[in-house]
Amino acid sequence: MQSRTASQSKTIVTDLVLPSETNPLNNLFGGELLARMDRAASISARRHSRRIVVTASVNHVAFNRSVPLGSLVMIEAKVSRAFSSSMEVYMDVWIEDRESGECIKANEAIYTFVAVDETGRPVKVPELVPETELEKQRFDAALRRKQLSLLLAGKMKPADATELKALFD
Amino acid sequence: MQSRTASQSKTIVTDLVLPSETNPLNNLFGGELLARMDRAASISARRHSRRIVVTASVNHVAFNRSVPLGSLVMIEAKVSRAFSSSMEVYMDVWIEDRESGECIKANEAIYTFVAVDETGRPVKVPELVPETELEKQRFDAALRRKQLSLLLAGKMKPADATELKALFD
Amino acid sequence: MQSRTASQSKTIVTDLVLPSETNPLNNLFGGELLARMDRAASISARRHSRRIVVTASVNHVAFNRSVPLGSLVMIEAKVSRAFSSSMEVYMDVWIEDRESGECIKANEAIYTFVAVDETGRPVKVPELVPETELEKQRFDAALRRKQLSLLLAGKMKPADATELKALFD
Amino acid sequence: MQSRTASQSKTIVTDLVLPSETNPLNNLFGGELLARMDRAASISARRHSRRIVVTASVNHVAFNRSVPLGSLVMIEAKVSRAFSSSMEVYMDVWIEDRESGECIKANEAIYTFVAVDETGRPVKVPELVPETELEKQRFDAALRRKQLSLLLAGKMKPADATELKALFD
Amino acid sequence: MQSRTASQSKTIVTDLVLPSETNPLNNLFGGELLARMDRAASISARRHSRRIVVTASVNHVAFNRSVPLGSLVMIEAKVSRAFSSSMEVYMDVWIEDRESGECIKANEAIYTFVAVDETGRPVKVPELVPETELEKQRFDAALRRKQLSLLLAGKMKPADATELKALFD
Amino acid sequence: MQSRTASQSKTIVTDLVLPSETNPLNNLFGGELLARMDRAASISARRHSRRIVVTASVNHVAFNRSVPLGSLVMIEAKVSRAFSSSMEVYMDVWIEDRESGECIKANEAIYTFVAVDETGRPVKVPELVPETELEKQRFDAALRRKQLSLLLAGKMKPADATELKALFD
Repeated sequence: MQSRTASQSKTIVTDLVLPSETNPLNNLFGGELLARMDRAASISARRHSRRIVVTASVNHVAFNRSVPLGSLVMIEAKVSRAFSSSMEVYMDVWIEDRESGECIKANEAIYTFVAVDETGRPVKVPELVPETELEKQRFDAALRRKQLSLLLAGKMKPADATELKALFD
Repeated sequence: MQSRTASQSKTIVTDLVLPSETNPLNNLFGGELLARMDRAASISARRHSRRIVVTASVNHVAFNRSVPLGSLVMIEAKVSRAFSSSMEVYMDVWIEDRESGECIKANEAIYTFVAVDETGRPVKVPELVPETELEKQRFDAALRRKQLSLLLAGKMKPADATELKALFD
Repeated sequence: MQSRTASQSKTIVTDLVLPSETNPLNNLFGGELLARMDRAASISARRHSRRIVVTASVNHVAFNRSVPLGSLVMIEAKVSRAFSSSMEVYMDVWIEDRESGECIKANEAIYTFVAVDETGRPVKVPELVPETELEKQRFDAALRRKQLSLLLAGKMKPADATELKALFD
Repeated sequence: MQSRTASQSKTIVTDLVLPSETNPLNNLFGGELLARMDRAASISARRHSRRIVVTASVNHVAFNRSVPLGSLVMIEAKVSRAFSSSMEVYMDVWIEDRESGECIKANEAIYTFVAVDETGRPVKVPELVPETELEKQRFDAALRRKQLSLLLAGKMKPADATELKALFD
Repeated sequence: MQSRTASQSKTIVTDLVLPSETNPLNNLFGGELLARMDRAASISARRHSRRIVVTASVNHVAFNRSVPLGSLVMIEAKVSRAFSSSMEVYMDVWIEDRESGECIKANEAIYTFVAVDETGRPVKVPELVPETELEKQRFDAALRRKQLSLLLAGKMKPADATELKALFD
Repeated sequence: MQSRTASQSKTIVTDLVLPSETNPLNNLFGGELLARMDRAASISARRHSRRIVVTASVNHVAFNRSVPLGSLVMIEAKVSRAFSSSMEVYMDVWIEDRESGECIKANEAIYTFVAVDETGRPVKVPELVPETELEKQRFDAALRRKQLSLLLAGKMKPADATELKALFD
C-alpha cells in the first residue's frame, strides 16, 4: 500500500454563517461548527484512505474566537498521521472579513477517523508522509495525543506513555 | 449567589435516528451526535447559570459504539463542576433497544460552557454541589481535566499541573 | 402480554426555540410544535408497545400560550390508555424561564398511535395501568374521547356514545 | 369591513414526499404532514384576513391513509367560517398517483387561526360568505365545532351548547 | 401515446419566505428560489409524462425583483413544449402582498426535464398541445430556445439554427 | 479601485451527497445542486467585490452527468469578468471517485451577481484581470453572454449585438 502526503488529503470547505445557525449573541453555534468540522475532516480521511470512514474520536477543541453572523468560514483539513486503520485529521478554521479580505485563525481542531469496509470492519490505511515543517510537527505530536487518549481511556499505563511522561520530567 | 446541585441542571433529550442523519453504514453521523450533545449540554449549563451560555471547549469524546438507524437515543446532561464563569457538563449517551426496551451506554462526553451577559462578557456562575458518589468523582476529575486543558493550551506550566503530575509519579 | 404502567412510557424531550422556527411575532410556529409533539408522543407509544408505531389521529390541541424565541420547551409524554392496538398519548408542554428557572404550562395535547408490524398491519399492545390520580383521570377520559372520535367519524351512533351522552343529561 | 368568499382564500400547496420525511414503513411522518398543513392553512387565513395570523387550535385530525415515499401530496385549504377575530380553515389532502394521474383523498383537517396586529393583539376579520353546497355545509358545521371546543375547554355549559345537544336528542 | 394540454400539467406551489432563507438584505436567497422552482417544475413535468423525471438544464433565469422576508411566493409551472423524451417547463413566479392582496410578477424561469425509466434511461413522453394564446407563444419560442441550447453546447452548427438565425437577418 | 485577478476570488466548496438530497434514482436533485452552486458563486463574487452580493441571473446550466449518492462533489468558482457593478462567476463542478481518487467534470455553470450597499443599491466593483489562457477565454466569452442576455430580455437590438451576430456570419 503506497504512502500518501498530507497535501493529498487537503480538503477545503467554505461556507457562510446563516441566521438559522446562530445563538442569542448572533454567533455561530458551537454544535454547528462541530458538525461542519466533522464533515470536512471525514472527507479528508476518505481522500487519504479511499475507504468509508467513521468518526472515532474528537480531541480537545477550544472555541477561542466567536464566529459572527454573516462571516465567511473556511475549514482546511489534512490528515496529520495515519496509524494502522485510523487517521488523525488536523483542521485549521479561518474567518475571512468581508471588507478587508483579511483572514484570521478562529480555532484548530483534531478528529480521529477509522477506515472500514462495507460491513464496518476496520481496514488498513496507507502511511502518511509529512512534508512541510508544520506537517512534521503535527505528525510528531499525534503520537503524544494517541498516548494521552489511550491513557485517559484506561487502555495504557502511565509508565508506558513515554512521550507524555517526558513532559513532566 | 446560591450554589446548586447537579440534579438541578439535569437535562434529558430523547430523539430518534432518522435516515437523513446516517452515514453509508446506516449509523448516526458523528457530527450529528456532536451537535445534539452540544444542544443538550448548553441547556444544562443554562439551567445551572440562568444565563446565556456559549460553548468554550469540547473535551476528548470517543465514539465507542455506533448508533444504528431507527435507534432511540437519550442524552442525559448534568453540570459536573462550576468554575468562576465556566461550567463543565458531563453527558451520558444511551441507546434504547425497541424490542427489549434495554438501554446500553453508547458513550460519554464532556463539554465546557461559559456564562455571558447580553454583550458577551463572562459573568460569575453559582457553585456546583455534587451529591451522589458518581457526581463527586466527576467533580474531582473536572479539576484534572481543567489543568490538562490549560497545559495543552500552553497556559499552565507542567510543574504547576499538580493533579496531573501525580498520575505519572 | 404483560401490562405496563404510564410511567414506563414517560418520555421527555427538551429543546430550545431557534430563530428559524419562529413566526413574524417571534413565537414558535404552531406547525413546528405539532411536529415536535408528534415525535415525543411516538417515542412514548413505542416504549409502551415496543413496536413500530404510526400516528392515527390528533385530538383537539389548543395553543393557549405562545412560546417566544429563545424559550426552553419541555414536552413530557405518557401513554394514557391502551386499546386493542392503539394507544392514546397525553402530553404536557412546559416553558422554562431562563432567569427565574420557573416552569409554566404552555399547553396539553393528545395524539393517538397504532402499533404495527413490519408490513404495516396493526398488532396487539399491552394494557396500560394508571397509577397516580392524574393518570387515572386521563385513563377514564380517554374512553369518552374515543367515543367522541368515533361519533365524529360517523362510526358510532349518538345513542351508543353512553359516556358522552351523560354529559348532556 | 367587506366580507369575502371561501374561494378568495383558497390555497394550494403541492409537494413530494422525500426520504428524509418518512417513517420506518416508508410513509410520510404524521408530524411532517401536521406541519405542512399548518403552513397551508396559515396562508389561507392570511389571505382572508390580510393580517398576521397565529395558530389557535387544531381540531381532530385522522390519518386515514398513509402517504408513501415519492407521493405527490396536494393540500387545498379554504377558510370555512370567520368569527370575530378567528377563522376556521378546512383542508382537503390529496395524493396523486404518478402513473395513473389519479387523485385520492388522503384526509381532511381543520385548524383555527387568530388574526393579530404587530403587537400580537387580536383584530377583527371580515365575514366569510360560503358559496358552494360543500362550503355551506362546512360553514354550518363550524358553529357546532366551536361549541364543542368551548365545551371541552370548560368555557361553555353543556346546556348552552344547543347545536351539539341536538345531536343526542 | 395521447397528447396532453398545458393546463393538465399546471402546478401551483405556495409558500412563505422564512428568516432562515434570507440574505443580509432580508430578501430570499437566489439559490433557495432556484431550488423551489426546480421542485415545482419537476412536479409539472411528472404530471405531463407520468414518469420519473430528472432536471436536464436550466435556461437563463433573471432575478428581476427581490422577494422580501415574510412574502407569500406563488410558483405556477406548466409544460410549455414536449420533445422526444424531454419537456420544457415554463414558470411564472408571483409575490402576493399581505395587506393589499395584490399579486406582482417577480420573475419567469424555464427548466428542462427528461423522463426516464427506473434504470435512468430516457423514455418517450406525450406531445404537448398548447391552448391559450400565451401557451402558443411559449410553445413556439421553445424551439428557438432548444436551438440556442444546442448551439451553445456545440451540438448544432449556426447555419442549421434556422429559427435563431432569423433573429439577426 | 484596484483591479483583482480571477484567482483572488477562487472559492472551493467540497461536500458529500447525502440520502436526503437524492431523487428516486439515488442521484443528487438538480435543485440542490443549483442551490449549492449559488452559495459557492456568491462567496466568489463577495471575495472579488468585498461587498454584499445578490444573485442577478443564472445562465444556461446543463446537467450533463448525474451525481450519485455518496459522491464527493467539488465546486470551484472564480469571477470570470466584472462589469460596472455586476460580476459573472464561472463554476466547474467535479465529482471525485472514492476508490480511485479520480476526478471527473460533472458540469459547468455561470451565475451573475450584483454588488450592493446596505440599502440594496448597486455599487461599483473592481475590474477583473484574467491571467491563465482559460481565464482569458472565459473573460472574452462573458461579453457575448452579456449581449445574449440583454438581447433575450429585449434590452438590446439584434443589430447591436455585434459579438453574437458574428457567430452567424
